[in-house]
Amino acid sequence: LTKVILVKLRDRSYPLYIRADLLKQAGPLIRKAVPSRKVALVSTSFLFKTYGRSLMKSLQSSGFCADPILVPDGEIHKNEKTLFNILQKTASLRLQRDSGLISLGGGVLCDLAGLAAALYMRGIAYVQCPTTLLAQVDASIGGKTAIDFYGIKNLVGCFYQPKAVLIDPSVLVTLSERHFKTGLAELIKHGIIQDERLFRKIENNTDAILSRDLNLLPGLIARSCEIKAGIVSEDEREVGKRAWLNYGHTLGHALESYYGYRLLTHGEAIAYGMCFAAKLSAHLGVCSPSIAQRQVRLLKQVKLLRKIPRFNLEIVFRKMFLDKKARSGRILFILTRKLGLVTIKKNIPSSTIFSVLTQFQSETRKMP
Amino acid sequence: LTKVILVKLRDRSYPLYIRADLLKQAGPLIRKAVPSRKVALVSTSFLFKTYGRSLMKSLQSSGFCADPILVPDGEIHKNEKTLFNILQKTASLRLQRDSGLISLGGGVLCDLAGLAAALYMRGIAYVQCPTTLLAQVDASIGGKTAIDFYGIKNLVGCFYQPKAVLIDPSVLVTLSERHFKTGLAELIKHGIIQDERLFRKIENNTDAILSRDLNLLPGLIARSCEIKAGIVSEDEREVGKRAWLNYGHTLGHALESYYGYRLLTHGEAIAYGMCFAAKLSAHLGVCSPSIAQRQVRLLKQVKLLRKIPRFNLEIVFRKMFLDKKARSGRILFILTRKLGLVTIKKNIPSSTIFSVLTQFQSETRKMP
Repeated sequence: LTKVILVKLRDRSYPLYIRADLLKQAGPLIRKAVPSRKVALVSTSFLFKTYGRSLMKSLQSSGFCADPILVPDGEIHKNEKTLFNILQKTASLRLQRDSGLISLGGGVLCDLAGLAAALYMRGIAYVQCPTTLLAQVDASIGGKTAIDFYGIKNLVGCFYQPKAVLIDPSVLVTLSERHFKTGLAELIKHGIIQDERLFRKIENNTDAILSRDLNLLPGLIARSCEIKAGIVSEDEREVGKRAWLNYGHTLGHALESYYGYRLLTHGEAIAYGMCFAAKLSAHLGVCSPSIAQRQVRLLKQVKLLRKIPRFNLEIVFRKMFLDKKARSGRILFILTRKLGLVTIKKNIPSSTIFSVLTQFQSETRKMP
Repeated sequence: LTKVILVKLRDRSYPLYIRADLLKQAGPLIRKAVPSRKVALVSTSFLFKTYGRSLMKSLQSSGFCADPILVPDGEIHKNEKTLFNILQKTASLRLQRDSGLISLGGGVLCDLAGLAAALYMRGIAYVQCPTTLLAQVDASIGGKTAIDFYGIKNLVGCFYQPKAVLIDPSVLVTLSERHFKTGLAELIKHGIIQDERLFRKIENNTDAILSRDLNLLPGLIARSCEIKAGIVSEDEREVGKRAWLNYGHTLGHALESYYGYRLLTHGEAIAYGMCFAAKLSAHLGVCSPSIAQRQVRLLKQVKLLRKIPRFNLEIVFRKMFLDKKARSGRILFILTRKLGLVTIKKNIPSSTIFSVLTQFQSETRKMP
């Protein structure tokens, strides 16, 4: 049966549907989300060939006039050029205010298509079909859309909620090992910030999860989505507890940027970030050392931590202050109290952060 | 004294301040609107020289670190290139999430800067200082931001509310006659759709208004803003009565586009559009012929209607259907019931629209 989770945001509320093979029966769900019968499907040529064609068939049987808009894949194309290419195609396909834009792809593609849907005629109905684990548990919820600009990730974007999200875990089988694990990092993060049971379930099933057991994945994805949806419902525009979701992201983003978004996947970078946040939490006495160790152990167990070339401490430290979360030169840090509970700290002395970062760097040098 | 009108939009409510010479004392009002002391001022070099410097002084005395971002003027620059130039400068000035963007300019500049503020870091505080009558009574209220794209006006944009709008009618003295009258057309429109008294006040004071009498203008602007603010408060995203504000805009936009946005100002185009809407209203029996005549008379009196080259009826007719307001091939028309009261009609037969348009074209050929 299809699991349905509602992201509650008053007049912008929307459902997440989760089920294996959902894309083949997407038409009727998308009919509920789009006012007219005219849609465009934004995807990459690989995903369109692999999953898009059966999605198109389902759309057509539901009475839709659907056209594909194919864009290149990868973070390097998450820019204004691709954005305006999509917008040009929506215009030439004569999409109107009551038409819909559907995305079939990973986080990059969902961020791009979401921004295009937000901006075309000041916003048309948007439906997301995320095809990576990361996009399914993270990018699909909360309405963040963006492109990279001026060398800064997600510098340009807006909040725009989709009308529906269709999550089909069976598409995860074509995902590479590294891409799968980058989503697993966010899944683990959701456990750390809000649900010890979810964390333990991952600890106890690492092998089955890594082999993409479809008996296990839908439930884990649904629980993870529920956690994120609950937080986003309470704080759509990230003024309060939505910042919890940035656990591990302050150092994570700095490392991603430091290594030019190539050496580390997002998940690997935030795995490092979570290790660092855990160590900082223990150092400041916000949690016990064993709570920090348990996080590091699980991240090692799923092989999200691997040895990385020595980084320049000063540069990475400065990059943390360039983060969007920094306000007037102060960093917000999310720390663990215990598994399932985090807290926001605003005034950690720079010297403390720097010294824990120094120690952290020397420890990571000993990793496998 | 400063008039204050509140645009009520729950957590996105904001004040309009109206007063002659307000820009010289803007600092303290902008302090209330922007979380930190860092702002950038988007303007044109002419406006920056004429009004921006005293505004900067006032900002600096209020403790702001303020930098100018100068952009070229004119509809032709209301595109993605100028938008991304502004975004690049906000990035290089290192504006953060709690910084502010201020616009000092007409509608084009406010639309551009508003979109940049909406998109930079997914939205920073935005303050508008509109310098044309059109921007003061129209663009400053309601949060519409946009650029032109694919040859279509305002095709790409979003809804983003400013934190405050500072309206200084004394800047209107440097406005050209044609630019002033384009705002007057919207003022008259606000009278037609919601306030017969305002309409009459304009009828009885056309000469004083055209000579920009500063005893008269602040009151008229304030009333006009109040009307638009009231409508927008009830219908932020234009699903219902906000469409009233499009009175005269269906044919108006079609004519603007037909003449390449050069021959007619926006005000002249919607003046024609309002004449047409009035005639269509009378033709359909929605209002009496005298109500339609009174609108045409006032628009002639302020010389907003002048003879235009014959247009191709078929092309203009088709352009009306390309309007953003058209949904699945049907045009929404706003018609006058009486002065101060309009109504939305969805199902006017194309043949009726075409025959009234044919008649309208032959009448306009007889204009002075």
